[in-house]
Amino acid sequence: MGGKPTLAVVGATGAVGAVLLRMLTHHADVWGEIRLLASSRSAGRKLAVREEESEVLALSEENLTGVDLALFLVPEDVAARWAPIAAAKGTVVVDTSTAFRADPDVPLVVPEINPHAVRIRPRGIVASPGCSTLALIVAVGALHAEFGLAELVVTAQQAASGAGRAGTAALREQLALVTGGELGTQPGDVRRAVGDHTGPFPGPVALNVLPWSGLLAADGWSSEELAVREETRKVLDLPGLPVAATCVRVPVVAGHAVSVHARFERPVTVGRAHEILATSPGVVLYDDPATGDFPTPADVVGTDPAWVGRVRRSMDDERALELFVCADNLRKGAALNALQIAESIIGA
Amino acid sequence: MGGKPTLAVVGATGAVGAVLLRMLTHHADVWGEIRLLASSRSAGRKLAVREEESEVLALSEENLTGVDLALFLVPEDVAARWAPIAAAKGTVVVDTSTAFRADPDVPLVVPEINPHAVRIRPRGIVASPGCSTLALIVAVGALHAEFGLAELVVTAQQAASGAGRAGTAALREQLALVTGGELGTQPGDVRRAVGDHTGPFPGPVALNVLPWSGLLAADGWSSEELAVREETRKVLDLPGLPVAATCVRVPVVAGHAVSVHARFERPVTVGRAHEILATSPGVVLYDDPATGDFPTPADVVGTDPAWVGRVRRSMDDERALELFVCADNLRKGAALNALQIAESIIGA
Ligand SMILES: NC(=O)c1ccc[n+]([C@@H]2O[C@H](COP(=O)([O-])OP(=O)(O)OC[C@H]3O[C@@H](n4cnc5c(N)ncnc54)[C@H](OP(=O)(O)O)[C@@H]3O)[C@@H](O)[C@H]2O)c1
Ligand SMILES: NC(=O)c1ccc[n+]([C@@H]2O[C@H](COP(=O)([O-])OP(=O)(O)OC[C@H]3O[C@@H](n4cnc5c(N)ncnc54)[C@H](OP(=O)(O)O)[C@@H]3O)[C@@H](O)[C@H]2O)c1
Repeated sequence: MGGKPTLAVVGATGAVGAVLLRMLTHHADVWGEIRLLASSRSAGRKLAVREEESEVLALSEENLTGVDLALFLVPEDVAARWAPIAAAKGTVVVDTSTAFRADPDVPLVVPEINPHAVRIRPRGIVASPGCSTLALIVAVGALHAEFGLAELVVTAQQAASGAGRAGTAALREQLALVTGGELGTQPGDVRRAVGDHTGPFPGPVALNVLPWSGLLAADGWSSEELAVREETRKVLDLPGLPVAATCVRVPVVAGHAVSVHARFERPVTVGRAHEILATSPGVVLYDDPATGDFPTPADVVGTDPAWVGRVRRSMDDERALELFVCADNLRKGAALNALQIAESIIGA
Repeated sequence: MGGKPTLAVVGATGAVGAVLLRMLTHHADVWGEIRLLASSRSAGRKLAVREEESEVLALSEENLTGVDLALFLVPEDVAARWAPIAAAKGTVVVDTSTAFRADPDVPLVVPEINPHAVRIRPRGIVASPGCSTLALIVAVGALHAEFGLAELVVTAQQAASGAGRAGTAALREQLALVTGGELGTQPGDVRRAVGDHTGPFPGPVALNVLPWSGLLAADGWSSEELAVREETRKVLDLPGLPVAATCVRVPVVAGHAVSVHARFERPVTVGRAHEILATSPGVVLYDDPATGDFPTPADVVGTDPAWVGRVRRSMDDERALELFVCADNLRKGAALNALQIAESIIGA
């Protein structure tokens, strides 16, 4: 790529897009033109990037011409249709949707774990994992390198913004409907107060925990739960790894929280796990139960790394650890990981 | 006990006490006098029970005289001091606090699981488990009877009222402070808005997930997490059962939600698990992913049973099941289980 490469941000107006534009302003300025694309609904809107106003263009063949690298931050069906079109024009596509993550011809990349994978991309597309996988995988991957991962059991407590702008909007609307009264003590009272303001969720998320996210996949599993399994296996290159995930939605704006039970091939100690986590890139160890130091979504939102605390060794198995990990689903969970991939591709 | 026995409700003014008084009004009327006790701060207050106003008395030796059975719904230190005093007067004590649950001379009883245990009570005290254990144990115990439990990994998402009246009050106060704005998107913005209104929690619970509940126990584990392990082992009479629990606090008023990974000795199927759960007393099976039927705290609060959904078999182990269980922490998690124990003792 001669000169500074042209970047397209496809889905610049979305929840992930908004965070990505702020990041472009703060990361090293390695890009030439930055072109903002979204649906035709948004064409003509002005958004700030690198401290300048930039006009949003409609996603089209024409507007994808002359782009060196395109970050796709759009729903799965839009990515499935348009990413191959961009790739056919010679654009390298980094996609954050679910469309290509399982494709054997598309590398699934977490730069702290498998940076090399970015180089072999037969379809011209690189995929970024889902937000729950990304919350846990940097910490778990670091421990895997030392102890050898044998099994994962995780519960991902996903924030509302994991479902995009519509998720955040629904949570804020619902909170206004349920706050101030005595709701949350009678069966269904919250559901009645929320009415049809459920947004993208299958029920009220305010004052509630919704044990569902994604679509129905096989045998009662949700697509999000199976994605955690498949993506973790692919990124860590452990195709036979047993993974049991439960994904629930909690009334948090942004910041996924994951409780992780990890069993390893070799014995573990909390001390050694602390050392590894404290020195792993992309991870912040924040773990001192005596002083009440543990990560929470509200404290880590807006930050880049995955924060890890509550590290305990199983009382029954010297090879098993519990961890509690929090990461901003819009940052490491999407925009940041995609931008890291893009920067590594252009050699920044 | 000649005539109808006299019942004392010690802690009648608390969160569990309030629910218990409503239950006494609706359960079969098997009690003679019902005496309401609390701290001296509450003496003279009037509370409704069995559709009559009754005056609250201060907890004292005198006011415990002539009581056949006392339900203790008070903090651990108060129970530790006063339960033996009541027992020494010949009163049978049913205690919901943590004070006696681990005592080998105190049976720990869940009537659906180990009703017989109530009969041998050398100290005159019977303990009721904690709310997280009670949320999961009826369902897990039923499956254990068929498949033989080999291991549990659970994440308990505990409601604010699990910390009593003060917990509910803190959540409602915090919600009023964080609702309506744009909070939840910058590191610490929720923490700053909540300020010192944390109540009994180690940080903000509104718009957040707090991975801590209880006191610091050994090696980074919280007392609540170790309690789930010890209580489950004791009630199921499986002293060597491996149990790894994570307890987090979520912004829900009442209703604990537990994601359960259970490994059994024998192969399991979802179909057989459904049959067992559908016919087990104290359990409601509510599980149809195709129609979006799964339990949530907001839907099961105010109801007696443990609701179970999201039953899936592990994709990697034919002996492992995932479940999502919700139960009202103030009902089955405390008042109801204690009342069931009391009713079984007097042979009602
Ligand atoms: N939210 C997260 O935490 C997260 C984490 C990891 C991955 N992801 C993935 O990232 C992608 C974006 O998610 P999001 O949360 O930002 O969603 P979002 O807030 O709903 O934003 C969707 C974006 O896609 C654009 N779009 C929709 N239909 C389009 C079309 N037909 N043509 C062109 N653009 C279209 C929207 O543009 P308009 O404004 O014009 O409608 C908007 O910019 C999704 O694939 C999601 O699965 C999200
Ligand atoms: N909340 C739950 O979900 C749950 C579940 C399982 C078990 N438990 C256990 O149940 C017990 C009660 O919990 P809660 O949630 O109802 O707590 P709570 O709302 O704080 O109520 C505490 C009760 O104890 C009374 N009390 C406090 N100090 C006393 C003293 N020195 N002498 C006499 N009475 C005193 C209070 O009376 P005043 O009003 O006079 O202060 C009040 O009635 C605790 O041991 C708790 O661990 C609770």
